[in-house]
Parts: sequence; C-alpha cells; structure tokens
Amino acid sequence: MIETIPLDDPDDPRLAPYAAMRERDLVGRAGRFIVEGEVTLRLLLSRQARFAAESILLAPERVAGLVEALAAHTARRPAPPPVYIASRSVMSAVTGFPIHRGVLAVGIRDGDPLAADLVPPVQMPALVLGLAGLTNHDNVGGLFRNAAAFGADAVLLDAGTCDPLYRKAIRVSAGAALTVPFGRLAAGEDWLALAACLSLTPVALSPRGAETLSDLPALPRALLLLGTEGPGLPAETIARARSVRIPMASGFDSLNVATAGAIALHHLRASVTKSTRDKE
Amino acid sequence: MIETIPLDDPDDPRLAPYAAMRERDLVGRAGRFIVEGEVTLRLLLSRQARFAAESILLAPERVAGLVEALAAHTARRPAPPPVYIASRSVMSAVTGFPIHRGVLAVGIRDGDPLAADLVPPVQMPALVLGLAGLTNHDNVGGLFRNAAAFGADAVLLDAGTCDPLYRKAIRVSAGAALTVPFGRLAAGEDWLALAACLSLTPVALSPRGAETLSDLPALPRALLLLGTEGPGLPAETIARARSVRIPMASGFDSLNVATAGAIALHHLRASVTKSTRDKE
Repeated sequence: MIETIPLDDPDDPRLAPYAAMRERDLVGRAGRFIVEGEVTLRLLLSRQARFAAESILLAPERVAGLVEALAAHTARRPAPPPVYIASRSVMSAVTGFPIHRGVLAVGIRDGDPLAADLVPPVQMPALVLGLAGLTNHDNVGGLFRNAAAFGADAVLLDAGTCDPLYRKAIRVSAGAALTVPFGRLAAGEDWLALAACLSLTPVALSPRGAETLSDLPALPRALLLLGTEGPGLPAETIARARSVRIPMASGFDSLNVATAGAIALHHLRASVTKSTRDKE
Repeated sequence: MIETIPLDDPDDPRLAPYAAMRERDLVGRAGRFIVEGEVTLRLLLSRQARFAAESILLAPERVAGLVEALAAHTARRPAPPPVYIASRSVMSAVTGFPIHRGVLAVGIRDGDPLAADLVPPVQMPALVLGLAGLTNHDNVGGLFRNAAAFGADAVLLDAGTCDPLYRKAIRVSAGAALTVPFGRLAAGEDWLALAACLSLTPVALSPRGAETLSDLPALPRALLLLGTEGPGLPAETIARARSVRIPMASGFDSLNVATAGAIALHHLRASVTKSTRDKE
C-alpha cells in the first residue's frame, strides 16, 4: 500500500510547481523539472534515475497501474515524495492545458557534474557523446534515447546546447534524459582539449568528414561530436578531430542529426566492444 | 516572371481544397494532398517529384524567394498550376489554424503503383524498404526521409501502414514522401512471396533477430522489413526471412523504429554497393 493525498483545489499551494506549465517551460523552474506520462515516471522512480522526485500527481484511475513502482520507490527512500491525487480537470486547470494521460511529477535537478567525473577511467573502454550547439529539444531528446540504447557512458553538452530536462526533451528521450549521465563543459572549455585530457579519440561527424564511418577502425575510447543541423560543427573542430561522414544518396543535411548520431553510436559501440575484446 | 492570382475572400471556391485542413486530414481529400512549407514545396516543384501540383497558395512576401523554382516548374508544364496569393490572415481563415510560414500547395495523387513495377530488374542491385503495420505518421515520414538519404529504390506498404501523403508525414519526411517511389501490397499479398518473386533477400529487423546487423554479409538485392513499435513483425515473417537485430544496451524497444530503420538502411546500402563492386 502507498499513501496518497487527494487534492481538489487547483490553487492548493502543494500544486504550485505544476502551475502554468507551458509558460514555466520558457522561464525555467529554479532547480526543478517536469516529468509526464507513465514510461518516464517509471524511469524517475527506478534505481537507474539520477534525480529524485519531489512530488507525484496522478489522476485517480492511474494509481492502480503504478502502485508497485511507487511502493518499491517509497521503500528505498527515507523521505519518499508525496503522491497527490487529482481529477484530470483539476490537473488541467492547474497546468493550463488538457492533461490526457493523468501522470505528472516534479523532479529535483542536482548541479550538472563535471565532464571528467562522468567518463570511465583511462584503462576502461568508453563511449561518450558530445553535443555542440544543439538547440532543438526534439533532437537532444532523441539523442539521449539513442545514447541509452547504445550504452553511452555519458553525454557532454556545450553552453549552446539546450536543456535535456526541458519537458519536451525528457518526453522525446523516452525518459533517457533521467538516466544517462550528462554534464556541461566548463565555460571556455574546448572539446579537443577535453578529449586529450580524458584519453578519448574525438570523432567529428560531418558531411565533410575525411573518412566514411564504416571505414573507421575499432576505437577503445571515443568521444562522438555532433553539431547542429544546418551549420554543423565548427571547421576548426572538424580539422582537429578524426572526422567521419555517413555516405548518403542526396548529400548534405538529408538525415536528422539524432538519426545520424544513432548510426554513428551503433558503429562506435560495436567498435568499442570489438577493441576491448581484441585486447583481452 | 510568373503569373499570380491575388485572392482575398476566404470563401473563394478556388481555395476550397485548402479549407478546414485539420478536419480534412482525418476524412481524406479524394485524390489530393497538402504540402506545407518551402522545403517540401520546392520538392513538389522539382523534377524529382512523383506528383503534380494542382495549385499553390502563398503569402505575398514568400513569392520573391520562390519565383525561380516556380518559373522553372511552369516552363516544364503544358498546363502549370495556378499560383494564388493571399495574406496570412486569409490563409489562416481558410485552413482554420494559424499559417505562419505562408507556403501551401495542393498535390494530386496518382494511383499507387504495383510493387513489382517499382523494384529494379533482377540483374540490377536493389534496396527496398517494406513497412508492415506502421500506423504512426511521424515514423512513416521519418522512414521516407531515411529511405531518401540512403537511396532506397522504393518503399512498399502493407494495408495496415498509414498514408505517406498525410500532411504530417510529408512534413516529417522533409518532402521525401513526394520523391521516393512507394506502392501498396495487393490485398492478401505476402511479404515473403513478394520477395521471392522479385529476387530480393527479405531481411526482417527485430529485437529477436537471429544474427546481428553488423554480421550480415553483403546482399546485392535486399528487402528490409520493419514492423510497428511494440508488437513488431509477425513471428511467422521473422521465421521465414533472414532476421537481424541491432544489439542494444537496454534491450527491446529502446530505439525508435525510424531510427532503427536508418541504421539498417545504412548497413544495407554499404552492403548493396559492396556486393555490386565485388561483382565488377
């Protein structure tokens, strides 16, 4: 059994973190983020989650399906988050738009860790994704999903890349933004200097890459660098990294960056695994 | 110069095909489809397009940027489509929602061709994508984009797969739905019988595939079969095809089907090219 707290006043102060959800997406939430839907809530409640839930808000008919996940989470926590129950119409009145799925939660961010703390030590294999200037939440969410699928150890973000804990990015990531470790580059930190410092081979994906992806040999420790659709990575980054291209029929810009990233992660994952096996 | 026709009455009968756009998405358009935005309109006007434009509807300030593409299209056509000009507010009144980009067109469908007519003859290399029961327009649109990127010869659809010329599918495809040839399987037609008849090796992508994608040898003629996210391809199809899986860290269902399809198309494109080169 889990304890639930029924609420029926949209102005209840306990619901304040859920209020005016779309407007708040734009201005930020002071150290909090919103999780929507059952798949992502289950990840937030799982052992894999990197973040704690502050509160959970469910439509009454959604409790039964989630009771086991909630109980398991509660059992692991000295101070489990409150589970509020409200009708979909109260939920919609609070958030300001129709809440069809009836599953919401507020999570608490921690400070973004340093890049160096997320990358496996030098004697281990490593697959790290680096995002440079990606401002589209769908693409960043999709890349977290793909990073999780191929077991990337971490995702590193430059200052120009958008927030993976933005509401839509979490949803598109299928919750992977809650589980895959990510960190920001320090101000002025350079991708290539970082790669050298962490003994990672920098691999820059670009339509102008010098070699094709499938010719890239096995790499035990790789940092895959992706730039934004359109301008792509800076020429200087491409020149200093090992640059690879995905051969395409219709040239530049025909693949979505999250899709191109998935193809490269698939190749590098096999490559990291192979080079580790060859060494053994 | 191109001739344009200014219209300022939302009830003008020449604008009827653009009316109540979202409602019409659901009930169909009797042999027509809607193209939105400059990228897709340019494809509809290009030589690559498989379909003719019936009319074009632009906001006045969008004409200058498109005048060359319109003129080139007009020059190739004995009866070029009319180019209507209307303010964004008239466009929005007609369609029933805000039209920000100011670029719309109506295209004319032809009958879906037969599968056999789309596949290159037996002595040629071939890469064909087969979609079984894909009901999500984002996924079908994304797969057309990926099919174009890797130069697939055609996309074949079973009766359960949604329409690639649905408004959102065209948009997500970045216009590839207008250029990549596609056809429907005949009622009761079986993927495996079709593959045998066209001398294509059927490759079924499935988390339960017998071999990993990267171990799949070069195939000169391949039919890549994808099933819907969730249930996937029928067990019987998987059993009768060459079945391959993409190794993943977190198991079943962690990649989006359009992304998984892109990874497989990338591998098969290299494979089709390689086996052709080996033969020469």
